[in-house]
Amino acid sequence: MTADTPSTYTQPEATEAAFYAAFGKLDIVAMRRAWWLSDQISCIHPGGKLLRGRNAVMSSWEEIFRAHEPPTVDYRLIQTTRDQNLVVHTVEERVKSGESDRHALVLATNIYTLVDDSWRMLAHHASLPLVDPRPEPQPPLH
Amino acid sequence: MTADTPSTYTQPEATEAAFYAAFGKLDIVAMRRAWWLSDQISCIHPGGKLLRGRNAVMSSWEEIFRAHEPPTVDYRLIQTTRDQNLVVHTVEERVKSGESDRHALVLATNIYTLVDDSWRMLAHHASLPLVDPRPEPQPPLH
Repeated sequence: MTADTPSTYTQPEATEAAFYAAFGKLDIVAMRRAWWLSDQISCIHPGGKLLRGRNAVMSSWEEIFRAHEPPTVDYRLIQTTRDQNLVVHTVEERVKSGESDRHALVLATNIYTLVDDSWRMLAHHASLPLVDPRPEPQPPLH
Repeated sequence: MTADTPSTYTQPEATEAAFYAAFGKLDIVAMRRAWWLSDQISCIHPGGKLLRGRNAVMSSWEEIFRAHEPPTVDYRLIQTTRDQNLVVHTVEERVKSGESDRHALVLATNIYTLVDDSWRMLAHHASLPLVDPRPEPQPPLH
């Protein structure tokens, strides 16, 4: 752990910043730190299946980090809903691959939970809006 | 409102059951009732953009309901995280279009909030796992 990476996130916004910074730097140690140390965590990458538990989620990030050049990751917090120990963020991500010039827009629902006075990521559900302007894919999957 | 459709959902599981029943019956009145009567609601359909606010979300369901035959909708609650006024559900949906024989698997994050002693849907984020076994699409969108 480096001096500029706190192990305690007193606000979920700090956890989120750490999460996206870790993604942008392909820093698996920082990525691990942003998530709750629990098998209750879950992650759905864009187009991906449901990953549950610490091993499955972290292995997926390790695989992503091994395979790619550092991307440019921008994000915008669109909405936050806060309860005592649970926070829901709706986030718009703009990810530019290290190998590409194009930005991809990704929508994410990020869930944080308060554990030992620190907010940790509990779940990350990301998806790609289709470029196709039709409101729904066929057949109706809602 | 019919006698078998309560306007108060004392548990988020009841709201969820009402939400999926409304989808299966293309019942827009029941669908409206399952959601929080607030512009803080949001919805991301599979492959869809972010819809925010009561009008945008309900218009999308009206459009879906107008366009299709009633689907068969099965769902399985995989994980629940509960706080005082906020509940997060990870759900696996199996949707069979009225016009098709094939089931589509959809992953959903459903968020419920407690309003006036009734749990209402605050957010629904649904996505389609790709059939492609690659763990990540290219370029890396994580």
